[in-house]
Amino acid sequence: MDLTKISSPSDIKNLNLEEMKELAADIRKFLINKCSVTGGHIGPNLGVVELTIALHKFFNSPQDKFIWDVGHQAYVHKILTGRAGDFDTLRKYKGLSGFPKMAESEHDVWETGHSSTSLSAAMGMAAARDIKGDDNYVIPIIGDGALTGGMALEALNHIGSQQTNMIVILNDNEMSIAPNVGALHSILGKLRTAGKYNSVKDDVEELIKRIPAVGGKMASIVERLKDSLKYLVVSGVFFEELGFTYLGPIDGHDFNELERNLLYAKKMEGPVLLHVVTKKGKGYHPAENDKVGTWHGTGPYKIETGDFVKSPAKGPSWSGLVAATVARIAREDQRVATITPAMPVGSKLEAISAEFPERFYDVGIAEQHAATMAAGMATQGMKPFLSIYSTFLQRAYDQLVHDIARQKLNVFIGIDRAGLVGADGETHQGVFDIAFLRHLPNMVIMMPKDENEGQHMVKTALAYNDGPIAMRYPRGNGFGIPMDEELKVLPIGKWEKLTEGQDATILTFGTTIPMAYEAAELLKERGISVSIVNARFIKPLDEAMLDELFAVGKPIITVEEAVLAGGFGSAVLEYAHDSGVNAPIHRMGIPDQFIEHGDVEALLAEIGMTPGALADLTADAISVLERKKELQ
Amino acid sequence: MDLTKISSPSDIKNLNLEEMKELAADIRKFLINKCSVTGGHIGPNLGVVELTIALHKFFNSPQDKFIWDVGHQAYVHKILTGRAGDFDTLRKYKGLSGFPKMAESEHDVWETGHSSTSLSAAMGMAAARDIKGDDNYVIPIIGDGALTGGMALEALNHIGSQQTNMIVILNDNEMSIAPNVGALHSILGKLRTAGKYNSVKDDVEELIKRIPAVGGKMASIVERLKDSLKYLVVSGVFFEELGFTYLGPIDGHDFNELERNLLYAKKMEGPVLLHVVTKKGKGYHPAENDKVGTWHGTGPYKIETGDFVKSPAKGPSWSGLVAATVARIAREDQRVATITPAMPVGSKLEAISAEFPERFYDVGIAEQHAATMAAGMATQGMKPFLSIYSTFLQRAYDQLVHDIARQKLNVFIGIDRAGLVGADGETHQGVFDIAFLRHLPNMVIMMPKDENEGQHMVKTALAYNDGPIAMRYPRGNGFGIPMDEELKVLPIGKWEKLTEGQDATILTFGTTIPMAYEAAELLKERGISVSIVNARFIKPLDEAMLDELFAVGKPIITVEEAVLAGGFGSAVLEYAHDSGVNAPIHRMGIPDQFIEHGDVEALLAEIGMTPGALADLTADAISVLERKKELQ
Repeated sequence: MDLTKISSPSDIKNLNLEEMKELAADIRKFLINKCSVTGGHIGPNLGVVELTIALHKFFNSPQDKFIWDVGHQAYVHKILTGRAGDFDTLRKYKGLSGFPKMAESEHDVWETGHSSTSLSAAMGMAAARDIKGDDNYVIPIIGDGALTGGMALEALNHIGSQQTNMIVILNDNEMSIAPNVGALHSILGKLRTAGKYNSVKDDVEELIKRIPAVGGKMASIVERLKDSLKYLVVSGVFFEELGFTYLGPIDGHDFNELERNLLYAKKMEGPVLLHVVTKKGKGYHPAENDKVGTWHGTGPYKIETGDFVKSPAKGPSWSGLVAATVARIAREDQRVATITPAMPVGSKLEAISAEFPERFYDVGIAEQHAATMAAGMATQGMKPFLSIYSTFLQRAYDQLVHDIARQKLNVFIGIDRAGLVGADGETHQGVFDIAFLRHLPNMVIMMPKDENEGQHMVKTALAYNDGPIAMRYPRGNGFGIPMDEELKVLPIGKWEKLTEGQDATILTFGTTIPMAYEAAELLKERGISVSIVNARFIKPLDEAMLDELFAVGKPIITVEEAVLAGGFGSAVLEYAHDSGVNAPIHRMGIPDQFIEHGDVEALLAEIGMTPGALADLTADAISVLERKKELQ
Repeated sequence: MDLTKISSPSDIKNLNLEEMKELAADIRKFLINKCSVTGGHIGPNLGVVELTIALHKFFNSPQDKFIWDVGHQAYVHKILTGRAGDFDTLRKYKGLSGFPKMAESEHDVWETGHSSTSLSAAMGMAAARDIKGDDNYVIPIIGDGALTGGMALEALNHIGSQQTNMIVILNDNEMSIAPNVGALHSILGKLRTAGKYNSVKDDVEELIKRIPAVGGKMASIVERLKDSLKYLVVSGVFFEELGFTYLGPIDGHDFNELERNLLYAKKMEGPVLLHVVTKKGKGYHPAENDKVGTWHGTGPYKIETGDFVKSPAKGPSWSGLVAATVARIAREDQRVATITPAMPVGSKLEAISAEFPERFYDVGIAEQHAATMAAGMATQGMKPFLSIYSTFLQRAYDQLVHDIARQKLNVFIGIDRAGLVGADGETHQGVFDIAFLRHLPNMVIMMPKDENEGQHMVKTALAYNDGPIAMRYPRGNGFGIPMDEELKVLPIGKWEKLTEGQDATILTFGTTIPMAYEAAELLKERGISVSIVNARFIKPLDEAMLDELFAVGKPIITVEEAVLAGGFGSAVLEYAHDSGVNAPIHRMGIPDQFIEHGDVEALLAEIGMTPGALADLTADAISVLERKKELQ
């Protein structure tokens, strides 16, 4: 079947079983093919091919609302809603998003990227439906991993008590991003092996009849025993206790089972949880055999072998560098322990977890718990390393405020994927962390210019004893520069002058330092020489150096790959004004908008963050200041 | 017993049952007495008198760690750890905190104020203990309300799977702040009425024996039936499924039951959940009979009658005004629905909930779910009013970023208790919201100068159709000014000049406007006249008015009862610099520190936010500018 001919789900409504199977096979082939070139979340999507086809066959999108939790498993949904033709542009600049996007299709009724939002969104949509008197179905599709996120559990608790009509599809593939952890995971494991209600229901009823009649005190016990049938035969007692009707587990690759159960769920009142067991990577051998999560989301790969097409990296990955340095220090310092919310693979923590299993905690998708657990450890003199992506740290903001910063606890917050992340797009850009951390009392924030400074910053963080300290590091790799053998402790709040110039100073840190060097080259051609300062501490500022720069009176240009509002440049402005200095400060950074997906270079160019633009801004600042001086 | 003679828990270790009862009675009398003068969380503390005595008798604090969730129920703990003598200063400036504070006592091992952090903190402390090879007990004490918070559920999931030694005390008083909601509440309700394991265990085993022997297929069914005994006799199947050993429910006012179960729990391996049923307000009639939560936390009251000693308020409470205006609009507009995370009483939503039960959702202590549920409703054309305290909105930061602002959904965020809140202290000050909202694209933030403008802002928010809009309003009451009959829609981003002066302009909003008026009076005495601008939109700024002010060139003083870093004044600085203007801007606000508890006036004075200080700052700014001009 030519998938690009599918313009809407109505095109698949009349397929028979054989045709559905063919469609599933075609979609798998298509996805394996396309993602081998573009990269993408191939594993999760191969797992939901039959489920997505069945949903679109037996429900009516967009009247019925499919809410894809996390959203990276919506490729099949995109194909069935007329977007197969766009897959060559998947996750590319101005191309098809890797997540649901309302602007792409009316069938995308909820946008995501972060985990565990679907049930709350569904509750909101169901409430709106009920208030308006509509009668559509609301169908969140949530993975077993996402279910451990606190807000999903909050939503289960609320939905169960409201008895709202809703069909929750629990897509259980025994993995979230990495293998799942937590008690819920064990519950689902038991369910998967326990078999289904229907198969034993009759037998048990027969058995109950055989219990001899008794009187007196025992009579009530027998009644209770009968009541407890539910617990005996319905394996999903956990969900039943929460107020859901539990159906399943069923084979998510069996169209007959899907049809029977979806149609049954449609007829039920109140919230239903349909437990669908799927195989991540189904139909593509390398992905199907993945045990750790390598095939969750990938770059391009060779279809035949499953080998990844690696772009040659010069230096170590940032995640790997930080992890290795933490491990090195942990060998000497028993107080160092690592906590990750479900990112052992992405944050390259496998080696740490293997070497220090008793000091390693993958808590599942549970950023709030991860942060406050780190705080709890710190109260006992430990040195927890909280490894977390910038965008997911947003989930733990209150824990940073209330538990970590307020109690001034020694937690090392390793902020992975800080700055623009590229293909994952606007839900994943790590651009808010400076703005949401900088106003927290007791917080130190730093970002290294290269991997050698990076290793020293890890050392600095784990040696720091005066409260929380956050180190930002970007997605991707270092430069491949020589590394110092010995780890050093950097003086907190001290910047580093990288180059000396006469006409202006560029203050920047991390990923934008190369941009400053390039701008300096361009300016040199125009006869302008600038200093570049590695403002490696975003908080506290190097006030002594700023005082010097203010005294010199030349333009100061701050550059940050983070939101401008309340960011680093803003901190420099604040300090200048509080010092009573009208310093000629100019700021470059991310404007007040969400940044879409695409190549980081392209995104930076779109928002005017290029070496050329920085050179222009600097040159303009210099001439404006000169003109002002002439006027005086 | 003279409670002030208790210097440490060792003083009560040797009490016998009768003496413990006497002690409990003395503590109740003491608390009722002291709180009648100071106010405080009398209800929750009266409920845990016996429990706290028993914990200190059978465990060894501080080696054993008591982690009080929320922390407002730690008064008895404070009494037993040598702080009875300080109760006259409870919640007063420089006095005893209403929450655990490490600086007060080594027995306070974890600080709180926000709900649902205890289990994660306990997991961190237990992990640290196990790594270090220590053998102390870790004992979080969590209410049934706090248990519905997402991070508590995340922690249950993790602790259950880790099988860490821990004794979780579930203090079930059927209330959190308001009566509890949610499926977990029903589960606990069933448990309370179902009775205990031990009382039926033997009977059931007898019954099982009576089941006739069967062969073949039925044999395995019988085995499963026997296995399922757990579900039959252990009522706490929900917790057992999560990996906890469930004990209870027990009467939390019965010392014998407490002793038996605490000693039993001490001997068990792995996580134990001891379900203790207590009565909020126990021993004080008015509090005991409270059905809605009025006695959760109170001001002073008359002991004999339970009548509250009200300080005469001039105007309506801010919460009440906002709620009444929302209700007024909801009468006309079916799209308006209200969501509160467990604050129907505090946010004065009882009337709304009574009038619009089908459009009112108390989701329990679940801020994340509340925010994203509002987003879900908004996708369906509803106009949700998310009523939330500033400090608790911190819990929903990622939901604001990822779900509400990014999708540009029409959610009206009513930020209650914005600014300093006083007696509840540093965990509750609503001072970060501007800094964490301002950098979010698509977000409008406003704060009214008085209750008349407040009602118009509610109208404005619910008429706004271009994304999220937040309205901050303080704790306490309005001024009692006349109210316009008709509601008006304010132009977004337009400020209002309140007074015209020649020498400087004070830009401020909300609670600090009276301070500006007072400062202007003081300045008038010094021959200085200032303009006061009601900067009621914190985002977007009134750029046209700022351009005018910049053109005039007189000093601009921004004043905000919120953190300075990244705040409103910072926004004004950013705009000035981005406009290429070196405007003489000066900022007044909350410095980079957590603000303790106490009277708001005293706190403001401590950080230098007084009319006198504002007048001085303004006068200085004027003379600095004049000197500069003279120098030119």
